[in-house]
Amino acid sequence: MSGIGIVAAQRAHFAQPLALKGGSVLPAFDLVYETYGTLNAARSNAILVCHALSGHHHVAGHTADNPNNVGWWDNIVGPGRPLDTDRFFIVGVNNLGGCHGSTGPASDNPATGKPWGADFPVVTVEDWVASQARLADHLGIDAWAAVMGGSLGGMQALQWTLSFPERIRHALVIAAAPKLSAENIAFNDVARQAILTDPDFHGGHFYEHGVRPLRGLRLARMLGHITYLSDDQMAEKFGRRLRTGAGSYGFDVEFEIESYLHYQGDKFAGVFDANTYLRMTKALDYFDPAQDYDGDLALAMKRARAKFFIAAFTTDWRFTPARSREIVHALVHNNQDVAYAEIACDHGHDSFLIDEPYYHSLVAAYLRRVVL
Amino acid sequence: MSGIGIVAAQRAHFAQPLALKGGSVLPAFDLVYETYGTLNAARSNAILVCHALSGHHHVAGHTADNPNNVGWWDNIVGPGRPLDTDRFFIVGVNNLGGCHGSTGPASDNPATGKPWGADFPVVTVEDWVASQARLADHLGIDAWAAVMGGSLGGMQALQWTLSFPERIRHALVIAAAPKLSAENIAFNDVARQAILTDPDFHGGHFYEHGVRPLRGLRLARMLGHITYLSDDQMAEKFGRRLRTGAGSYGFDVEFEIESYLHYQGDKFAGVFDANTYLRMTKALDYFDPAQDYDGDLALAMKRARAKFFIAAFTTDWRFTPARSREIVHALVHNNQDVAYAEIACDHGHDSFLIDEPYYHSLVAAYLRRVVL
Repeated sequence: MSGIGIVAAQRAHFAQPLALKGGSVLPAFDLVYETYGTLNAARSNAILVCHALSGHHHVAGHTADNPNNVGWWDNIVGPGRPLDTDRFFIVGVNNLGGCHGSTGPASDNPATGKPWGADFPVVTVEDWVASQARLADHLGIDAWAAVMGGSLGGMQALQWTLSFPERIRHALVIAAAPKLSAENIAFNDVARQAILTDPDFHGGHFYEHGVRPLRGLRLARMLGHITYLSDDQMAEKFGRRLRTGAGSYGFDVEFEIESYLHYQGDKFAGVFDANTYLRMTKALDYFDPAQDYDGDLALAMKRARAKFFIAAFTTDWRFTPARSREIVHALVHNNQDVAYAEIACDHGHDSFLIDEPYYHSLVAAYLRRVVL
Repeated sequence: MSGIGIVAAQRAHFAQPLALKGGSVLPAFDLVYETYGTLNAARSNAILVCHALSGHHHVAGHTADNPNNVGWWDNIVGPGRPLDTDRFFIVGVNNLGGCHGSTGPASDNPATGKPWGADFPVVTVEDWVASQARLADHLGIDAWAAVMGGSLGGMQALQWTLSFPERIRHALVIAAAPKLSAENIAFNDVARQAILTDPDFHGGHFYEHGVRPLRGLRLARMLGHITYLSDDQMAEKFGRRLRTGAGSYGFDVEFEIESYLHYQGDKFAGVFDANTYLRMTKALDYFDPAQDYDGDLALAMKRARAKFFIAAFTTDWRFTPARSREIVHALVHNNQDVAYAEIACDHGHDSFLIDEPYYHSLVAAYLRRVVL
């Protein structure tokens, strides 16, 4: 049950070119966003919620046309909820390169009048934060009370403290990591290869061919899903249960876990854009704020002025608590203000999306301390 | 350096039909095998080495035509090595359904004169053991001194103790599990879906189309490889190193780990049969000796008469030591003879293939105790 009720997306156009980390320049772009709650007179109560790989701007509430189209983090946003809309002004935004309304690979390339496709640049976490800063300008927000996100969203919150140290007072970094491991990159690589080698991908220009690389996108999502869940949770939810009760000794769907993965893969492939998926995984791969500091994260974090709330989940094997502790250690080393929580929740990496009372109570308590 | 020198494969034809667990009957079949050492007069010194997903009969030595074509477990087999050919007669066999000479999906179906393809039945660990028993008959071996294998090979060693309790005196079960977890099945499912949805798969009858589902097989192998290595090992071997030293902000190979995975995937797809791969993963999925005993592994293992050597590797996250301990606990519960070793080796699941001195010394010590 949404606490906010009906919400509607808004669109902001940014006519100034945006220079991207990869070297190219985006001539202009749109960002689609939603807001919940009211910006106070001092403009000091705004919280930006950043989305992860497959997320978007529709964070909370439901759309007018569909009461079931509830935002992906609705359980944490609303009146009396941890991101309390009675007190805060919450902003959700679809990232640049996304496929939910903001300028992305499926948008028309002004130079050709055709979809960008493969020619849409690879965007980075730094680029997203730069574009979000434009949105903050547009909304008249000098500094965020907080920027918050889980997984890739948490990396954006972290990057905000480095790109715009004076424009973010608190960073809530949930289930994230300061950079991907080789294994993380390896999983992303397999997902990308599934898309890139799908004959319907057409080098990224599939829009013009009237097809979509559904096979590759489906495989990518199935694989992703395995890494989002915990082994224990899968065992509990599916175990070795057969769909039909008996082995078929063929290659149709047989185990419950297969049925679940196929459903998730098909659903995702039906709505998501393959070029966006490729770019989201690349943004993950490239994120590494310590890279320019010889791998010294503490040195990299020195310029941050924000206070930090870092949280990790015990069953998350994609970004284990050890990965969050790397961030905590760097901040502690610098004598920076950081609160850290390691939360028992059996939903693996996806725990950050779960309405887990202890987790939510910690976020609520932390945000109550935020002075407006 | 091979200790054995030149070896040559042999072929045995079995004209008697083999009834498979899945219900179908294989009218006749061939098994390709190699042997090392000499069968003693009492025929009491034979060890069967079972292969895992991508293995075959060429366990040790090298072929006459190519000194670099060394067997996949050569480091453990030979004069003075743990599987000492001065003392034991070692047999390696390509499993039924394989693609290295034994009857499999690429063999001609006698009913049609064309390759079996999709019509080759799904074979199980039980079926393999049944076919291996025919090979034992052929070689005049009443009982194996030992059956040994890693991963899926270990499952065959375990199954030998249940299918033919009187024909196996020792089972060496390395880096295995008594059944797959939901997560294990999920990874297999994604690998299979990559193959099944490759347009070049043609429902398994690709031989007739003159193509092979290289894309799918490559993805399957890349994914498999991630699960064979440990996170730490990947970090140490590849880390986040870029191939070119700088980010390309495109979708070509960029990180060293990507280059490695593509190489492994391409190499494998070039030589392996997709229909065999599908069947090997299904055999893994189905293996569950406790299934007919309400999940009670101890009850299932009661009829075993063999002595057991179980070994697991600390960094193996595909089949963690906890999975091996499930087997140990069942055997201990039954007061059966079992030795268990949990070995620190940083090569993940693939540790069973590594020349790790402590691991090899344990296998050697165990086999020295085997009375001939």
